Amino acid sequence: MTQYSSQLAGCGEYSATVRAHKEIYTMKRLSSLALIGLIVSFSSSAVEPIQPIAAYQPTDPAKAELGKQLFFDPRLSKSGFISCNSCHNLSMGGSDNMPTSIGHNWTLGPINAPTVLNSSLNVAQFWDGRAKDLQEQAGGPIANPGEMGFSHQLAVEVLETIPGYKQTFKEVFKTEQIGIDQVTEAIAAFEETLVTPNSPFDKYLQGDKDAISADAQAGYALFTSVGCTACHNGQAVGGNSFQKMGLVKPYKTTSKAAGRSAVTGKEIDRFNFKVPTLRNVELTYPYFHDGAVWNLEEAVGVMAELQLGKQLQEQEIAQIVSFLKSLTGDQPNFTLPQLPPSTANTPHPNQS
Amino acid sequence: MTQYSSQLAGCGEYSATVRAHKEIYTMKRLSSLALIGLIVSFSSSAVEPIQPIAAYQPTDPAKAELGKQLFFDPRLSKSGFISCNSCHNLSMGGSDNMPTSIGHNWTLGPINAPTVLNSSLNVAQFWDGRAKDLQEQAGGPIANPGEMGFSHQLAVEVLETIPGYKQTFKEVFKTEQIGIDQVTEAIAAFEETLVTPNSPFDKYLQGDKDAISADAQAGYALFTSVGCTACHNGQAVGGNSFQKMGLVKPYKTTSKAAGRSAVTGKEIDRFNFKVPTLRNVELTYPYFHDGAVWNLEEAVGVMAELQLGKQLQEQEIAQIVSFLKSLTGDQPNFTLPQLPPSTANTPHPNQS
Repeated sequence: MTQYSSQLAGCGEYSATVRAHKEIYTMKRLSSLALIGLIVSFSSSAVEPIQPIAAYQPTDPAKAELGKQLFFDPRLSKSGFISCNSCHNLSMGGSDNMPTSIGHNWTLGPINAPTVLNSSLNVAQFWDGRAKDLQEQAGGPIANPGEMGFSHQLAVEVLETIPGYKQTFKEVFKTEQIGIDQVTEAIAAFEETLVTPNSPFDKYLQGDKDAISADAQAGYALFTSVGCTACHNGQAVGGNSFQKMGLVKPYKTTSKAAGRSAVTGKEIDRFNFKVPTLRNVELTYPYFHDGAVWNLEEAVGVMAELQLGKQLQEQEIAQIVSFLKSLTGDQPNFTLPQLPPSTANTPHPNQS
Repeated sequence: MTQYSSQLAGCGEYSATVRAHKEIYTMKRLSSLALIGLIVSFSSSAVEPIQPIAAYQPTDPAKAELGKQLFFDPRLSKSGFISCNSCHNLSMGGSDNMPTSIGHNWTLGPINAPTVLNSSLNVAQFWDGRAKDLQEQAGGPIANPGEMGFSHQLAVEVLETIPGYKQTFKEVFKTEQIGIDQVTEAIAAFEETLVTPNSPFDKYLQGDKDAISADAQAGYALFTSVGCTACHNGQAVGGNSFQKMGLVKPYKTTSKAAGRSAVTGKEIDRFNFKVPTLRNVELTYPYFHDGAVWNLEEAVGVMAELQLGKQLQEQEIAQIVSFLKSLTGDQPNFTLPQLPPSTANTPHPNQS
């Protein structure tokens, strides 16, 4: 069982442990022939540093549906122009494909917008992990002057004047008074639905050896042997730890982001960032916390050199990229939400 | 048949004429008893100044699907941040619910963004009708420095580097080279799908007398008798003519928009604007070409006074508003599109 213990720091540990227990229990009850097959299967899956993403299990569909409306509603911003989906665009891998985002009054943000896809698997939210979970995260951009530029109170005041929202909040939260905690709880509930299972690589892990190309298979072997999986592991292939950007060689950037030290206040955490998920990485360009690298090949080469002190050959990089592209899973698949209209009492958007 | 001839200037004439012919043909073949009923039905529908919206009839679904992707793709803008859907938001009645839109570098536009819903029924596009159809319109915002801030050439250069688009354009247009005319043709094909049939008022027109309230019925009678239908008629309840804003009394505004005269060069067309559709008007606030009025009640009162020289009572206005709210039809109902990813060759967005 040491192979499981070694993963306990990551996100995948719970499901891996449960699966191990289930498999042991099952093994005791099977015939010896089947047992041999299961041991092979168990052993091979047990040593994988990456686990398939589990499909989303609906818990409260009505709450998630309300959260979807809120996620797409620009009335949560001061201008009435910017929604969660503006920077975490669900048509584009849950990202905005820009180095840093455009916010209120065309303010350029200080850091690359991470994808919202599979973000429920993250150990914490934001690059520096300053929000412990999705609900805490969701309140951030609404009140950030350079993002949605609003305030929690004003956002709630807008929602309070919209009968369509009043009714839905009442149904979902059994309340007569909308609160910001319910707003962020609903958004988080929607974001929890945004997992991307069934990638070719997941199918490969699950036994379909033809699901990815020979190049991608070679790339996965390299990804593991070179050491990428030291940080990029678990269901999300990252997202479950903080690591220094520029571990072996310093990373040169114009970005002023301090990283994890901004949260802990400890100098040792300077330039430590949450390891980004590599799920759907083909869609979430540009790369790194400063969004400085657009090209996946370049990103792989830089990472190998700066984090692992290794110079990869062109072919090795191509193979790893081939593997990375096999991590693109099922993208969000839902009907564009319709938003309930404002009324005469609704405060007007403020573009200035 | 004069009642049909009188509508020939509008948008609804084709379906009305076809329906008349069909009804006459049918009448000839029916028994006299049934004939009496039909004559009653025919006569009452024939005098209606407003016709139900016909459901969209798919012509080229693949082209419309491509157009949907393009409609949602911010890479058609210089910044990579603004798509057609930014200002014609299909979650919000095909509008942005702002007085005037926010464009590149937070530029505020000169005029209110008209709804894209049912825009295929318009006699021409833009408030001043400077684009003859949806295809011509679609090219405008892309190249407008204060809107998407790009150029047709640069937009096409972006699309040319995206294999997912290359393949789809090839399938839809049988071409190896993407052109701006194909881009705008596809967007227009998608926009043609954005009709909103089955409003309560349409059901009322089609014989379901309980589909709208007594207030709405009284409001419709007023809407007709007061004279609103002089301009707001046809399938789209507007959109089929240009009229002077402030016909009886001048409209006071800070907007510099000249209206139709900017297209014709004729002084007599100054301050003539395309009559907006009133379909889904509950969702398309704020109102008028300058977006100065947020309240539907106020908008009705101002219109009656300035265009018709009439002072409506509060109750009359409330009834007309009740009728107007019955014009909200089926909103767009489709899966959020997924956009094909850029490549290393794709020009980067430019936020400046």
